Amino acid sequence: MSLLELDSDQLKELADRTRKNYEELKAKGLKLDLTRGKPSAEQLDLADELLSLPGVDNYTDKNGTDLRNYGNGEGIADIRELWGELLGINPAQLLAADSSSLNIQFDLISWSCAFGNNDSEKPWFADEQRKWICPVPGYDRHHTISEQFGFENVTVPMLEDGPDVDAIAELAKDPSVKGMWAVPMFSNPTGVTFSKESIEKLASMETASPDFRIMWDNAYAVHTLTDEFPEIIDVLGIAEKTGNPNRFWVLSSTSKITFAGAGVAFFGSSRENLDWYMSIANSRGIGPNKLNQLAHANYFGSAEGVRSVMRKHSGILAPKFTAVQNILQDRLGEYDVARWTKPEGGYFISVDVIDGTATRVWELAKEAGIVLTKAGSAFPGNDDPNNRNIRLAPSMPPQDEVEEAMDGVATCILLAAIEKLGA
Amino acid sequence: MSLLELDSDQLKELADRTRKNYEELKAKGLKLDLTRGKPSAEQLDLADELLSLPGVDNYTDKNGTDLRNYGNGEGIADIRELWGELLGINPAQLLAADSSSLNIQFDLISWSCAFGNNDSEKPWFADEQRKWICPVPGYDRHHTISEQFGFENVTVPMLEDGPDVDAIAELAKDPSVKGMWAVPMFSNPTGVTFSKESIEKLASMETASPDFRIMWDNAYAVHTLTDEFPEIIDVLGIAEKTGNPNRFWVLSSTSKITFAGAGVAFFGSSRENLDWYMSIANSRGIGPNKLNQLAHANYFGSAEGVRSVMRKHSGILAPKFTAVQNILQDRLGEYDVARWTKPEGGYFISVDVIDGTATRVWELAKEAGIVLTKAGSAFPGNDDPNNRNIRLAPSMPPQDEVEEAMDGVATCILLAAIEKLGA
Repeated sequence: MSLLELDSDQLKELADRTRKNYEELKAKGLKLDLTRGKPSAEQLDLADELLSLPGVDNYTDKNGTDLRNYGNGEGIADIRELWGELLGINPAQLLAADSSSLNIQFDLISWSCAFGNNDSEKPWFADEQRKWICPVPGYDRHHTISEQFGFENVTVPMLEDGPDVDAIAELAKDPSVKGMWAVPMFSNPTGVTFSKESIEKLASMETASPDFRIMWDNAYAVHTLTDEFPEIIDVLGIAEKTGNPNRFWVLSSTSKITFAGAGVAFFGSSRENLDWYMSIANSRGIGPNKLNQLAHANYFGSAEGVRSVMRKHSGILAPKFTAVQNILQDRLGEYDVARWTKPEGGYFISVDVIDGTATRVWELAKEAGIVLTKAGSAFPGNDDPNNRNIRLAPSMPPQDEVEEAMDGVATCILLAAIEKLGA
Repeated sequence: MSLLELDSDQLKELADRTRKNYEELKAKGLKLDLTRGKPSAEQLDLADELLSLPGVDNYTDKNGTDLRNYGNGEGIADIRELWGELLGINPAQLLAADSSSLNIQFDLISWSCAFGNNDSEKPWFADEQRKWICPVPGYDRHHTISEQFGFENVTVPMLEDGPDVDAIAELAKDPSVKGMWAVPMFSNPTGVTFSKESIEKLASMETASPDFRIMWDNAYAVHTLTDEFPEIIDVLGIAEKTGNPNRFWVLSSTSKITFAGAGVAFFGSSRENLDWYMSIANSRGIGPNKLNQLAHANYFGSAEGVRSVMRKHSGILAPKFTAVQNILQDRLGEYDVARWTKPEGGYFISVDVIDGTATRVWELAKEAGIVLTKAGSAFPGNDDPNNRNIRLAPSMPPQDEVEEAMDGVATCILLAAIEKLGA
């Protein structure tokens, strides 16, 4: 029965009970954290073998090159081929770099601002007004980067099968709109995977800027929670077919597969885009850590080796996600005070609470020792216009802590809703 | 006897003999390379232990933090303390990053251009005219970066105890001059180490730009060729004392100590400078490869451990440098057709041949199968106004190849000089 359908006695009874629950929750003196999408120690243990790889006397790639020395800014063939097979990208169109694809994303925007990219008439900085499209809710670190470079972050809603592509196509008619963020599979934080249809629209739409780019941050392509691996759609192939081969900058990495902070990142795109990138990357430095790339190639062995690792992650993560779902359903289902995503992959559950109460939920949780990602953080400028979205990241705490924290969060969501009703 | 003092018969005889030498050299069909300052395989072997470090079950820093996960953008305490001791820098003023300090140098300039640094009134890009001071001969990759960002590279001569600081102080009166390159110890390519006096002048001079910076690329601080380690002058302390605490950006790395392409880089500066850097670095990414930092800390063990490794490098490198000196002296000393540096550290020997003949020497060597760094490459825009400087990098080829190549180079230098005399 929805909260709104309760009569005043029922509501009073629920309010009293919920306040009592909350006082009991506070009394526990919890110290729990559901803020960041970090892997747990148990997940990191899966890759412990990597700590001693590539191993003494193992320092050449498949071409016989000594990887201990300078050189090879594009990354070693061994890992580019393996990852290209995994993602369905021609290794010649896929660079391997150091850890964190976020670094590359930052640099792509930075260098387009400073110099213009290969399709620019002038540097992006030459335009006083710069806009960047952000599907919301989205990834806070993305928004930070475009904001850092002086872009106005303009939002479009995330729908069930990807962002609102009609709204995006409309925005792209504005020449000051230079690009957009996208997490196309098991998106952060909604878990949405873009449909092929929506991808085709993004690839084929007209853009006023010839140098418009879509930052295709495919961070969770193989981060399944079901042991099923969804098809990775060949976005570069589609882009080429539609006559916009340079539209997508595709990013990927081993983060949350091996070691979150010490992995290998990948950048896939048209060869023209890669050549532009390398022309500047070659002045920035003398190449990535190729030994770490070799270590990763040896550790995985093959594309199937990556999937095998991901099934083990799923075995650790899925019970936590299931617990979140079950607790939210058990505690809140009958009152209709929240809607939440049921992701089949990725790292997050996105919860929409009663409009106007997200900040209050965050405060209540904090007072009870449960740290949640700040309300609104999935929106540019931390500004959730409806003040209703909360991102849950259940990966890092152990199972029992996830359960304890979520039970507390449910109490907070319910209490905030009751408070809003003035009960 | 100088070439100029030979009578015409003597000159004719020498010319004939040298041409015959050169034909014999070409007939050998050599394929030798003295271009880049890369360590040799024998040097890289010194660090082979690192290939299996940090090792299974070893993934926490001295504070007990799990280094496999995200976080800690400033680098781990273990390696910052060790390196701080080595360089005489307070670890709180020293960040540890991924491989290659060149990356950091590029970013420092890039971000100062885009956003301004912590002392800027406006972004460097806001000034149409931007100038950067380059002591010459210098490091080609430095020049490329400042050129990339639209700086006019203005040159000052490198003297015996550092760059011409009076010329620098004069240039710094121009508000469009934003900074300068410096390799303060065993400089690339001259081997010059800046005197304390010259450092004090650089620290105390007035600059028209309040956000003027000296990129203090101390790449060769411990790269001795004599087993003696010169004092590393406390440039940050001097800068603070003179009231210009933010003037120096100090860079260092394990390149050419462990693995050239897979090491750890360091950035030392005033805390204010570091905070500015981190405010942007934190939006670029989630931190460096901390496991590689731990591996390096374990491999070295201590600052003395680094010096111990460097003595082994010296044992491999010094005979090559000695051979270059001896061959140049034996073959050319009597003719006065070249002057060369006698470095006590670093990776290069800088040779000045007869004015106007450097390009010809390079061509002759190339035709004989000996690849030298392109003539003029130590000057911005590859423009050596006297066309006389050649940078020799003897580190990578085995000893016998260095000797064979240098004997050939001597022939080419002599032949180019003879050609210039019209003989």
